[in-house]
Amino acid sequence: MQHDALIDLLDRMTLEEKVGQLVQLTGDFYSDRADARTGPMAQLGVKDSELANVGTVLGVSGAEECARIQRSYMARNRLHIPTMFMADIIHGYRTIFPITLAIGASWNTRAAETAAEVSAREASAAGLSLTFSPMVDLVRDPRWGRVMESTGEDPYLNARMAEAFVHGYQGDDLLGDTSRVAACVKHFAGYGAPVAGREYNTVNMSERQLRDMYLPGYRAAIAAGAKTVMTAFNTVDGIPATGNRHLMRDILRGEWGFDGVLISDFNAVRELEAHGVAADDRQAADLAMHAGVDIEMMSICYMRELPGLIREGRVDASLVDEAVLRILTLKNDLGLFEHPFRGVDPEAPTVVRPDATSRAAARRVAAQSAVLLANHGSVLPLRSFTTVALLGPVARSHDVLGSWSAQGVPAEAVSLADGLQEAARRHDIDLEVARYGQKPEDYTKLDDATFQEAVALARRADVVVLALGEPSAMSGEASSRTDIRLPQAQVELFDAVRAVNPHVVVVLSNGRPLDLGQIDGAQAILESWFLGTESGAALADILCGDTNPSGRLSMSFPESVGQVPVYYNGDTTGRPYEVAPQEKYVSKYLDAGNYARYPFGFGLSYSHFVYGEPELTSTTFDAEHPLEIAVDVTNDSDADGVDVVQLYVRDPVAAVVRPVRELKGFHRVAIAAHETVTVRFTLCERDVRYVHPDLAERSDPGDFLVSVGPNSRDLNSPMTVRLTETAA
Amino acid sequence: MQHDALIDLLDRMTLEEKVGQLVQLTGDFYSDRADARTGPMAQLGVKDSELANVGTVLGVSGAEECARIQRSYMARNRLHIPTMFMADIIHGYRTIFPITLAIGASWNTRAAETAAEVSAREASAAGLSLTFSPMVDLVRDPRWGRVMESTGEDPYLNARMAEAFVHGYQGDDLLGDTSRVAACVKHFAGYGAPVAGREYNTVNMSERQLRDMYLPGYRAAIAAGAKTVMTAFNTVDGIPATGNRHLMRDILRGEWGFDGVLISDFNAVRELEAHGVAADDRQAADLAMHAGVDIEMMSICYMRELPGLIREGRVDASLVDEAVLRILTLKNDLGLFEHPFRGVDPEAPTVVRPDATSRAAARRVAAQSAVLLANHGSVLPLRSFTTVALLGPVARSHDVLGSWSAQGVPAEAVSLADGLQEAARRHDIDLEVARYGQKPEDYTKLDDATFQEAVALARRADVVVLALGEPSAMSGEASSRTDIRLPQAQVELFDAVRAVNPHVVVVLSNGRPLDLGQIDGAQAILESWFLGTESGAALADILCGDTNPSGRLSMSFPESVGQVPVYYNGDTTGRPYEVAPQEKYVSKYLDAGNYARYPFGFGLSYSHFVYGEPELTSTTFDAEHPLEIAVDVTNDSDADGVDVVQLYVRDPVAAVVRPVRELKGFHRVAIAAHETVTVRFTLCERDVRYVHPDLAERSDPGDFLVSVGPNSRDLNSPMTVRLTETAA
Repeated sequence: MQHDALIDLLDRMTLEEKVGQLVQLTGDFYSDRADARTGPMAQLGVKDSELANVGTVLGVSGAEECARIQRSYMARNRLHIPTMFMADIIHGYRTIFPITLAIGASWNTRAAETAAEVSAREASAAGLSLTFSPMVDLVRDPRWGRVMESTGEDPYLNARMAEAFVHGYQGDDLLGDTSRVAACVKHFAGYGAPVAGREYNTVNMSERQLRDMYLPGYRAAIAAGAKTVMTAFNTVDGIPATGNRHLMRDILRGEWGFDGVLISDFNAVRELEAHGVAADDRQAADLAMHAGVDIEMMSICYMRELPGLIREGRVDASLVDEAVLRILTLKNDLGLFEHPFRGVDPEAPTVVRPDATSRAAARRVAAQSAVLLANHGSVLPLRSFTTVALLGPVARSHDVLGSWSAQGVPAEAVSLADGLQEAARRHDIDLEVARYGQKPEDYTKLDDATFQEAVALARRADVVVLALGEPSAMSGEASSRTDIRLPQAQVELFDAVRAVNPHVVVVLSNGRPLDLGQIDGAQAILESWFLGTESGAALADILCGDTNPSGRLSMSFPESVGQVPVYYNGDTTGRPYEVAPQEKYVSKYLDAGNYARYPFGFGLSYSHFVYGEPELTSTTFDAEHPLEIAVDVTNDSDADGVDVVQLYVRDPVAAVVRPVRELKGFHRVAIAAHETVTVRFTLCERDVRYVHPDLAERSDPGDFLVSVGPNSRDLNSPMTVRLTETAA
Repeated sequence: MQHDALIDLLDRMTLEEKVGQLVQLTGDFYSDRADARTGPMAQLGVKDSELANVGTVLGVSGAEECARIQRSYMARNRLHIPTMFMADIIHGYRTIFPITLAIGASWNTRAAETAAEVSAREASAAGLSLTFSPMVDLVRDPRWGRVMESTGEDPYLNARMAEAFVHGYQGDDLLGDTSRVAACVKHFAGYGAPVAGREYNTVNMSERQLRDMYLPGYRAAIAAGAKTVMTAFNTVDGIPATGNRHLMRDILRGEWGFDGVLISDFNAVRELEAHGVAADDRQAADLAMHAGVDIEMMSICYMRELPGLIREGRVDASLVDEAVLRILTLKNDLGLFEHPFRGVDPEAPTVVRPDATSRAAARRVAAQSAVLLANHGSVLPLRSFTTVALLGPVARSHDVLGSWSAQGVPAEAVSLADGLQEAARRHDIDLEVARYGQKPEDYTKLDDATFQEAVALARRADVVVLALGEPSAMSGEASSRTDIRLPQAQVELFDAVRAVNPHVVVVLSNGRPLDLGQIDGAQAILESWFLGTESGAALADILCGDTNPSGRLSMSFPESVGQVPVYYNGDTTGRPYEVAPQEKYVSKYLDAGNYARYPFGFGLSYSHFVYGEPELTSTTFDAEHPLEIAVDVTNDSDADGVDVVQLYVRDPVAAVVRPVRELKGFHRVAIAAHETVTVRFTLCERDVRYVHPDLAERSDPGDFLVSVGPNSRDLNSPMTVRLTETAA
């Protein structure tokens, strides 16, 4: 449909039809079984007749159901405007990929893109046209349960991943390629920084800090063409994001030129009342509309109040028209006017299932997302002709999909036991799997008989693989925790096993950085997060050496919760610990160091990589002439491997205090055994811009310190380079 | 001296003499034993000849030494300008009062004033003219060691205490009353909010939040006439406070009209370089001078660089003149030109010692500062004719003065053993004191023999008083901790004692809120902080019932460090826990509640207070007509007691999200046994002002919810009142 036709359509809509477009309700409202007297309509106060105007549907999926709803909806809608199905497809639809935090740990934008692409294909075939993904909220506090849905603590890595997800979902031709879906960048803005890591809590930071650290991820996603943006539940400097005009009108739409659809999070418009910035639905509608929210998800302040607000002149009718036009444009961009069923053949709706292609992709991404945290004495990979005992609550568990995988089927997922049994056969490993770990409660309780069996098995084995972790329900939305250690029962199991066998390989499954102090004595630790449908297969590939681990942490693992938040890119202090850690009057603790247990960017390989001294093409650069930094990385081992070579920059003197280091580039490179690869980085003037006190982002001429290394801690001595001239 | 004479003096000063006034050095520089080649002068690069111009002296005290330095200084100073002695007299000079956090817990402004007054009297007699107190930094994170020096988490209580301290130090006639000293409000601004509770770490908050919560304390102290202000080590929105022109020129001097002396914290001007906002001393001097810092403490960027900066026109000479004039004015306000020795008789310098008056004051304040946290089965007060065992590392310890008590003498302090022995005699209590607790290392290590003796003693006793806590070195400056539990050895002692005797009264000594989960089984818990010189006497008074405890927490005690920061006046969220704590999608944790273990304002008494329903003179108020709230509080017990009746207000709908409640008044009232007292509060339009998004502080007409109660948690059902009209 041409733009003029959309305008014409808009002109023909009644005000009631218009405000209907601004509402989003869940699929329950359209269920065959929805009872108008007791069901969701009655609960929310929506009349059946009004459903025909409601613009979009949330959380329903499945080709048959979407086709049924679309068919009946369009028949009832006076102007035959199609509805549109949106849902949270976060890390896979039916074929589940690793949780986002794990994909972040791949440091592989292609992995993110693949996961998004496969998700889009399956979601589209199941009737969806939009996914509420990617979440690009920067996170620093592992207590927050939703860190599992982020790509971590760094604005640069987040931005690169955000672009990749958007491109993976949307492809290059959203209109023509019906295997793609529209992306929704969330949660705008700063949702990842709740006080004390407590879900939905206040976010408190300056706008400068918000712009400097938190906004780049969203901006990158929007620059990559993301069609829609979702508001956040939190406040931004005292004003809830969903009613925050400065954030959305001034920055998002004004400065960044975003002209797509802005949707509230679930019930977030009405929550302006709970927040105490709106007295009633009317004021909530007023605030959200003026702030720029187009679609109100799961509350009906707009539907009930906008007509009156327009009549009284409090809301300009043009604001509503603009919002409706944006929604119609989105539907049109997806071709819904011509093809309302889009990825679905309404005559032959199919059920999406993982196939060989999607499983292979999931396995590949999973294998790149696991992070080897420790491997003393090279106990890994497991050797052929040895006896391996597999124990622990996660060993046989199919709870490997992680939160936000509603359409995923645990039974379709490869458990660690399944995967390792298969691999053990290939590798002539004698594997015994304990009964321990067959029940969900095994995560937190000890059953004496299985516990004893596990210890007995451990005693007999050459190596113990102990699968520990959090059940998936301990992370995700509304799953903040004050204690980020492993459940005590698991620590007891670890201690008992460790007492009878020193060769303990811990495979961890969890949705957040944990305090791993209690399993410090493990000979190896393999962080598996929740790797999804192919979890066990990918882990077995790593454990048995078919795949060389290549994941790197995208979020720091603290020494303890008392050190939280601890992140690699903290601001320089006036009394820096780095310079004199033993002195009393430096920025530190009495009882702990300042550094994370496992820092940002950290991860081991079965290979041993040796870094040469970086070489610069020049020691100066300017807006026209970037700088090239080359470093030789040698794989000084017999195993082919993949390294993630990282570039960090520090601005030693600036108008505001700058972080001690900031990631400005990374390369994931395969390096064959005994080979050397030259890795090249380009440092541009753009890379050293920062947000000044006047809130403008620009660079200042002067010196910068440049370091290269395998993680944010183990860097070469910084080299000084000079920006001679900034952009005009 | 008249103002004109000061101007005349200024006119006669050379630039070198002027910049000298802007420097502050420690007493070491003036020591008889200072070696020009190896001592502090050589270290800092100061020439002996320059010392004669240095304007003020830091950290030296003692009448004889001050007199000696003043005499020789004035003889060498060309214009015979006196120097001035400043030091950190935080909670007492020689007679040590409770730490500031404890004085905050008295909720008694008169106690703060008394402590300051006695401190001033002793300090002045020891040659000092200014104390670097009060610290009015609002604090929320108990990991930060310096919470011991604050009055807690509430802006209202902090402001009232700040005023009282200032008045206590300065009195009403600073010039005439040489037993007073000038106050220095610190640390401007926001020093109490370092990220992760780590000393000197970045502070990150919006200016709105800073103004709303953190600035009121400083402003109140300045409104109370504080002569000087000290900058903070931290950044304020990315710019170190010491170089923060907006903070000091715009807000402090511009908006608040502060025209006193602004002094940097120790070395903080030079630390602008470590912070990365100044390339060198020159730029540091430039930034600090333009930001408004008059005195540079313990670095010499001003002395070295200002002349050049003035010559080159980068710094206007008038800025230096203004700073010098402020310093001369301060000296003149203290009468130092006429009486350079001020509180000291240079012919007969005396040594200050605690006397009966100062001890009595210290004992009174101490008794009001202890907080009774638990008293199951009314085990306290101790009963006559019972056997009491006193155990634990703090029992015999003289480490009861707390950090920041440099001139205090531990041996002069009454230990708990000393105090309780004396009281036990009076009360016919059979007291046995274990040997445990004679060595400092007993705080963290177990000595098996004394441990066994302690347990044996506990087994024989009717009641055990177990004195546990942190040594004083675990709190104070540069003493942040990630673990805020009692040392493990003490928990083991507690468990062992508890196992043989259920009647365990824990007396705690510590400088921060602790996680007290491990001693939850104690029958009574008496929080004693560090009560100072009369600690043991005051505690014995409470334990034996001579004094009824009346302290109330001024800072929340968390359930665990994983809940930090937890404070009573958090912002309302969009998904409030208070309304539906059992629901999943509310702002909460999976594994802990949202509330502190012991909330702000909490403390028990031996009396039982019963609150009537509050009565209002009217349900409306405006800028001209405040509201009066009256509540009857009945002492329904046989013990005369003191209650702290607290008024809280909530603004349910505002332009920004407001706290769930805010303290707006309190009364500390003595209520005799079986008596009823009517407590009256006045709520003014001024009390409901808040900082709006435009950073202006004003009120909005509308409803407010008013509650009264004995602490921030146990409040009556809120009553709605309405502000009908705001100030013009």
